[in-house]
Amino acid sequence: MAALMFAVPPLLLLTLTLGLSSGQQSSSLWPLPQKVQSSEVSFKIIGSSFSIVDARESSAGPSCNVLQNAYRRYYEYMFGGNKRRWHNKNRQTGPSELSQLQVWITSPDSECDGYPSITADESYELSVDQSFAVLKAPNVWGALHGLETFSQLVYEDDYGAKSINSTKISDFPRFAHRGILLDSSRHFLPIKVILTTLETMAMNKFNVFHWHIVDDQSFPYLSRTFPQLSQKGAFHPYTHVYTPADVKMVVEFARLRGIRVISEFDTPGHTQSWGKGQPNLLTPCYTGSGPSGTFGPVNPTLNSTYDFMKQFFQEISSVFPDAYIHLGGDEVDFSCWKSNPDIKEFMVQQGFGEDYKKLESFYIQKLLDIVAATNKGYMIWQEVFDNGVKLKPDTLIHVWKGTQEKYQDEMANITSAGYRTLLSSPWYLNRISVGQDWRNYYKADPQDFKGTDEQKKLVIGGEACLWGEYVDATNLTPRLWPRASAVGERLWSAMDVKDLNDAFNRLSMHRCRMVERGIPAEPLIYSYCPREYNGI
Amino acid sequence: MAALMFAVPPLLLLTLTLGLSSGQQSSSLWPLPQKVQSSEVSFKIIGSSFSIVDARESSAGPSCNVLQNAYRRYYEYMFGGNKRRWHNKNRQTGPSELSQLQVWITSPDSECDGYPSITADESYELSVDQSFAVLKAPNVWGALHGLETFSQLVYEDDYGAKSINSTKISDFPRFAHRGILLDSSRHFLPIKVILTTLETMAMNKFNVFHWHIVDDQSFPYLSRTFPQLSQKGAFHPYTHVYTPADVKMVVEFARLRGIRVISEFDTPGHTQSWGKGQPNLLTPCYTGSGPSGTFGPVNPTLNSTYDFMKQFFQEISSVFPDAYIHLGGDEVDFSCWKSNPDIKEFMVQQGFGEDYKKLESFYIQKLLDIVAATNKGYMIWQEVFDNGVKLKPDTLIHVWKGTQEKYQDEMANITSAGYRTLLSSPWYLNRISVGQDWRNYYKADPQDFKGTDEQKKLVIGGEACLWGEYVDATNLTPRLWPRASAVGERLWSAMDVKDLNDAFNRLSMHRCRMVERGIPAEPLIYSYCPREYNGI
Repeated sequence: MAALMFAVPPLLLLTLTLGLSSGQQSSSLWPLPQKVQSSEVSFKIIGSSFSIVDARESSAGPSCNVLQNAYRRYYEYMFGGNKRRWHNKNRQTGPSELSQLQVWITSPDSECDGYPSITADESYELSVDQSFAVLKAPNVWGALHGLETFSQLVYEDDYGAKSINSTKISDFPRFAHRGILLDSSRHFLPIKVILTTLETMAMNKFNVFHWHIVDDQSFPYLSRTFPQLSQKGAFHPYTHVYTPADVKMVVEFARLRGIRVISEFDTPGHTQSWGKGQPNLLTPCYTGSGPSGTFGPVNPTLNSTYDFMKQFFQEISSVFPDAYIHLGGDEVDFSCWKSNPDIKEFMVQQGFGEDYKKLESFYIQKLLDIVAATNKGYMIWQEVFDNGVKLKPDTLIHVWKGTQEKYQDEMANITSAGYRTLLSSPWYLNRISVGQDWRNYYKADPQDFKGTDEQKKLVIGGEACLWGEYVDATNLTPRLWPRASAVGERLWSAMDVKDLNDAFNRLSMHRCRMVERGIPAEPLIYSYCPREYNGI
Repeated sequence: MAALMFAVPPLLLLTLTLGLSSGQQSSSLWPLPQKVQSSEVSFKIIGSSFSIVDARESSAGPSCNVLQNAYRRYYEYMFGGNKRRWHNKNRQTGPSELSQLQVWITSPDSECDGYPSITADESYELSVDQSFAVLKAPNVWGALHGLETFSQLVYEDDYGAKSINSTKISDFPRFAHRGILLDSSRHFLPIKVILTTLETMAMNKFNVFHWHIVDDQSFPYLSRTFPQLSQKGAFHPYTHVYTPADVKMVVEFARLRGIRVISEFDTPGHTQSWGKGQPNLLTPCYTGSGPSGTFGPVNPTLNSTYDFMKQFFQEISSVFPDAYIHLGGDEVDFSCWKSNPDIKEFMVQQGFGEDYKKLESFYIQKLLDIVAATNKGYMIWQEVFDNGVKLKPDTLIHVWKGTQEKYQDEMANITSAGYRTLLSSPWYLNRISVGQDWRNYYKADPQDFKGTDEQKKLVIGGEACLWGEYVDATNLTPRLWPRASAVGERLWSAMDVKDLNDAFNRLSMHRCRMVERGIPAEPLIYSYCPREYNGI
């Protein structure tokens, strides 16, 4: 037979129980908070008498859906598994029992009815002590993270009783942009698996869902303005589309978890599916002197193209509330443009010579102006910067190409030009291999490049990307988790949190916690969870 | 962004519906039967009036659980998705309607109450024609395969009505041993995921579940004779063990699907977990002149070892009804034996010199004799053959090592020595990578080595192995399917069935069929299924 072909100590049989021994209770925290002080003093928590309540001084009250929903969600995570709990509301609280978590939103505006944003204050402070615990945060976004941390502090003692240790935590994210990219074009992703992803993102303190919603392969976005796009471009016009109601549900589900939804409508390349429902949008490719019947990137020479884009992005800017739209701009193949006589004539007229990058920039420039007019900011893939397109100062440049050396140079170049940037190159989770690849994700650092402190401050974070060629609802969740969790800690925790052994131990426990919450997060290596995944 | 890094035609958007166009109905058959004749003539099948019944002449009747269970299972597969079906039992059958499948077991002994075996006749003949279809098979094992094939012939026509075309099929497997290996030691596999695997194996005409049940990492098998083995050696003595009732359920669930369960209890290496509950079984390793506290392989010098093995395999031979037990024998590390003074003395006594392979063979020889006395046949990993151990003529030698050239040589050597063999080397499905690795699994052929026709006949088949270092219930099913399906067709279909394009098309549809039956089988590449997986 044979499986011992991997360099792993054969007897590393960790007792992967969730904080079994007292004093070890903070060892399952993921991502690690900025500052944790805990003691051996422990309190029991009993489901039937424990409550999460708004603090009297809090600026958020019972009408704050974000918090009220979160209280129920975290109560369920902490006590849901315990079916035989004692329902005696009149029971006296014992002396070494924690009976309440008070949630105190300190700013006058709790932001309860708003959307999270890149400038949101996500900090919180948590104090667990005799009889009650207090979670203080400037607004609901920090409070959500604090609730997750609180739930991670709860462990089962040797007698199976839920316990929590006296603890003080002060926490905030290292980076403001901590994203996951899913691709719903190579395979249609049913809403259910998107919601599961958002749910799990919250457990890992991610705050951006980058929805690469359409691409060459299919156009599942149902546009109110151009319904033909999905009617013709989706895998199926009814079963494989996202209706406006679906999008609204995803955006709201995300908001309730402090997650922004940034949609990507990538042009001028990656648009084959757009052409099916929108005639004359794509460039007809030529073989010799006649059209070949195939199409290339968006046709940048026609006014109709820009009229279309204007109307389309007008819609997108209202459907997706986030302040940013991702406009793509990567991997434009020039061969079709080069074959087309109208394009060639346009090149001459514009004085572009043979430089098709200039044509690409011409298009992108006009697109950016269109989107800027909708009052949205934009994110673009690195090629747009590389090609010298003029960008608004608030543009976010997304680095995805190359090996470590290459992407470090790119980050240095972008930031030295004064732009903000975020990193994905080392975090293409679709690239699978045998073994613990999470270790490499964990080691990568977006600020690890040659540059000044000012440059480093222009790094807003990163995104783990799960491209969809080989991924659909059947395998997405175990492929994403806990591998993305490694990226989650890198983007949240302090720069010096990088001990791989400690990370391994905490992540092993965190993955079992996700499993216990019903998420099929795959194992790091041989091990067991107290409660194994009970799905298929 | 960027995902177009794989060499795939960007617009290969197959219409992956299950046999949408009539005349194409056999294009989703997997594995491909030996002989298929079909015509354009199609019949409707209506759930409310269709039945699967025993033919009047059949030797199996209503008391045959294997068939009665299968009838219900396949009815559910074919009509289960259609919730709004018309329940009118008195409706007259229409003229172009197929109303019945008659199952005719032709041998006097249907084998209904027996177990499948390596000598089972798995052939069947299927004829679909006006008003009813007939499935003829010598025994229930062939009939099960025929039912699967029949269910694969049913498709939805353009109006969504279930249809089937006039068809004649004559089918039998190319190899008698078509296995899947699961490893329940590196991770405990809940019974549910094992049963799902068996269910899906039947959809792919696999007939052997090789249960690598224990190994270094854990001993989940609850032995009646030596309960301490799992009490001490399992990850958890209650939640992470297979009780006798569990094993019985797995064996019966498999039998009902024509699948043999071959258990593997690998010795003398891969036994760390055995040592926890059975003192003195393993060899104490020495550092200098004293024991180091660690242990090596089974101690082959003590009589108590053989007393234990005798009792243990006595139990195993009665718990697992199959005629074969897999005894392992791979990857024995000699360093611990070399460190131990008692072992060294024994080597001298026996005149083994410094050749620890002789000590290994000494042990294996005694073990084989013990197991032979229980009237079981044995399978062993190739090392046992390589080391020159004397083997019974009916021994099955399992080839797992090496690259193509190496394993082809090994197959040639084994068969030229007159032994039967089976192949796993190219089918280690735990080795994941980006892309369509099923294509390589598909291309490998167990009879592709230099040898005579007589030698080729000694190849009984192969097994796809999914070792458990990185696999548990969270990711097992999508990692196994449809990659293992490629192996399934290689082992079932005729030698000349090897067109990769045709296989791609059929396998894409077969994977959607598995998804529709609730199995999260992952995609081959971008595509869609009419009904996507609706789990997490």
